[in-house]
Amino acid sequence: MKKKKKEYSLLEKKISSERVFSGNLLQVYKDRVLLPDGRASEREWIKHPGASAVLPVFESGEVQLLKQFWYALRIKFLEVPAGKIDPGEEPIRTAKRELEEECGVRARHWTSLGVLYPGIGYSNEVIHLYLAWGLEVHDNSADDDEFVEPVRVLFKNAVEQTLNGEITDAKTIITILRAAKWWKENAPFPIRLTM
Amino acid sequence: MKKKKKEYSLLEKKISSERVFSGNLLQVYKDRVLLPDGRASEREWIKHPGASAVLPVFESGEVQLLKQFWYALRIKFLEVPAGKIDPGEEPIRTAKRELEEECGVRARHWTSLGVLYPGIGYSNEVIHLYLAWGLEVHDNSADDDEFVEPVRVLFKNAVEQTLNGEITDAKTIITILRAAKWWKENAPFPIRLTM
Repeated sequence: MKKKKKEYSLLEKKISSERVFSGNLLQVYKDRVLLPDGRASEREWIKHPGASAVLPVFESGEVQLLKQFWYALRIKFLEVPAGKIDPGEEPIRTAKRELEEECGVRARHWTSLGVLYPGIGYSNEVIHLYLAWGLEVHDNSADDDEFVEPVRVLFKNAVEQTLNGEITDAKTIITILRAAKWWKENAPFPIRLTM
Repeated sequence: MKKKKKEYSLLEKKISSERVFSGNLLQVYKDRVLLPDGRASEREWIKHPGASAVLPVFESGEVQLLKQFWYALRIKFLEVPAGKIDPGEEPIRTAKRELEEECGVRARHWTSLGVLYPGIGYSNEVIHLYLAWGLEVHDNSADDDEFVEPVRVLFKNAVEQTLNGEITDAKTIITILRAAKWWKENAPFPIRLTM
């Protein structure tokens, strides 16, 4: 049984696709697919435009996070600045826009920390991760529909909180840990970090 | 503007809720909510039963992962064993069941690695994370609808791949990194790990 399965291609082929809900935020599809063993099945999935997230690092050794309430969970999360990609927008541009809109911060230096997929079982969302430094703080003009509370914490404390379970938002955990790894190897300026 | 916003409670209150799609996998809701400033708005969200994920560690220093194709992204992901919580099931029981169903492995020792929230913007999904050791391998009888390829990799290589961007599934990255942190502090048996 185990051996036989390995011989299949793991691909599933689309037979047909139907949009079953179209909202302001969510586009939900139900597709009929052909499984590797020749049977048919159904796949329900969310179409998402993708998002970008950024960890902004100050020369004080602090990082700029924010607290935000999310309705689906009724929880206030500590998060990295992040947001959805607008149609046609480059992911790095989204990150720069969200950093300015949510935190009133611009950064001179940017590096990519790769991507992550938050919900592979039912969403095509990809999140592009960045690290930014050389920060310039100016005015804050948060989005109309967002109630955002900026919070600065020491980079090393943020790392600790991702690992001990205090920070629970997936994109925030991964951005902080990849950023810490990158910083330890490249350190544009010295920050004491332990992982 | 910034000061004024901080005075608001960040909570949003439900006015009404409508189920706009009910599938085999996805339950989609559209709620009308009262914002902290007194205006009304809409929130679209996915109701999810929650999930559990586990990193199983062998005394060889290897961990048991698996490769699986996910339709929404048309990508084969390297993942920790994981699955949805059945109605009324304890999260630890889900983790044990999935480890056995997906990998044919039982574990004598378990520890919790906390939780993560993969999609706070539009889903109420929570994923419970575990580390397991004292493993016993027996037969593999994977789910009917799942085409799963078991893969063993060195724990230290898995850690490296989460940080350099080769592993991109959010729950897998976070389970591996929290497990590595726990292992470095508690090591039931010695494994060389760097982060």
